[in-house]
Amino acid sequence: MNLKQIAAERAAEYIQDGMKVGLGTGSTAYYAICKLGERVRDGLQIQAVATSEASDKLAREWGIPIIPFDQIGRLDITIDGADEVDPNFNLIKGGGGALLREKIVAANSDQLIIVADGSKAVDKLGRFPLPVEVVPFASEWTFKALESMGCFPEWRMNGDERYLTDNGNLIADCRMEAIEQAPELNIKLNMLPGVVDNGLFINMANIVILAKEDGSIDELHRSN
Amino acid sequence: MNLKQIAAERAAEYIQDGMKVGLGTGSTAYYAICKLGERVRDGLQIQAVATSEASDKLAREWGIPIIPFDQIGRLDITIDGADEVDPNFNLIKGGGGALLREKIVAANSDQLIIVADGSKAVDKLGRFPLPVEVVPFASEWTFKALESMGCFPEWRMNGDERYLTDNGNLIADCRMEAIEQAPELNIKLNMLPGVVDNGLFINMANIVILAKEDGSIDELHRSN
Repeated sequence: MNLKQIAAERAAEYIQDGMKVGLGTGSTAYYAICKLGERVRDGLQIQAVATSEASDKLAREWGIPIIPFDQIGRLDITIDGADEVDPNFNLIKGGGGALLREKIVAANSDQLIIVADGSKAVDKLGRFPLPVEVVPFASEWTFKALESMGCFPEWRMNGDERYLTDNGNLIADCRMEAIEQAPELNIKLNMLPGVVDNGLFINMANIVILAKEDGSIDELHRSN
Repeated sequence: MNLKQIAAERAAEYIQDGMKVGLGTGSTAYYAICKLGERVRDGLQIQAVATSEASDKLAREWGIPIIPFDQIGRLDITIDGADEVDPNFNLIKGGGGALLREKIVAANSDQLIIVADGSKAVDKLGRFPLPVEVVPFASEWTFKALESMGCFPEWRMNGDERYLTDNGNLIADCRMEAIEQAPELNIKLNMLPGVVDNGLFINMANIVILAKEDGSIDELHRSN
């Protein structure tokens, strides 16, 4: 069993009978879904939503009941991965392009448990490019505004075409290297007309479970 | 000549040779476009973008050169209407559903001139329902969050279907009657995952030209 799997299974232990669960996306979330699937086969009663088609499909294959978003109500726990985690439990997410769905699901969960390998823990966010979701209308203006803000945006590509999110928007990956004031940047980005949302998850993660290279697991709980 | 037309033509006087101009949408913007069209026929040299298909078409009919958004660069002046204007030059816009495009164009203009009939001037914003543009994904959650914020949202309908914006999103019309702190609400709404943008235009209008019922025109200039 690899480290990601150990961490993911630790996260899955938080899920109890009767809970409404958000299922994240990515290689670590994959293991969490599989573990929950095993537990459902053993009788665990949960209802779930997924942040991607891939996770939706995987969960259904395991027999995890997937409920439409408009029927499930507020979630108890969401388990998801992250691209970076800082010491204040702030995250960069959305390397996979699903930042908006992931943020909506996280915002509607009482608890967000982040599972990642230890390399995702950073002192300061920003080495991982911050994805910013931009509406296509007049997107060059929004791109220039991101440049003016010092965000060093680059359009995410899909071959020769600009990458499109599930919501039909563009992604500008912002290569800032070091984000000094993540909460403020989060607001500035979202207040920019043309920006739908961005990959900064501020004050959203409650528990971070890190699988470290030395084989140990760090489980961190946010106090506030 | 009706009052809206007088006010709109006053706004059109601000446009000078060589300017890049944003053309708004609605009954007052209509007259401004027509007046600019006359001036273009008389030799005025401008380049323009429009916030709607209707205004785009009208401008082309008048021979106003319409430039693609990705080629025009920053605008000098945008002339547009508003649903409400408060004494601080803050606006509610987007009754027509194009709030996002209108906000992007306004944000990329050095000056925003608002033209409206006097009935749009209010002491406090909010009697006109504030439109909030919401992504369709898990939109019931976003709707409930708007309810929890005390915004009294109602989905805008198009017959039996939910109204869709040009960007493929939903509109929640928020019937708050009186908005106490418009700048703060603007931020709260845009920070809500699932909200793309909202119809509050804070610190965006530079000049407001109001055609009043007594036949006079009020032309107000924002000092800051």
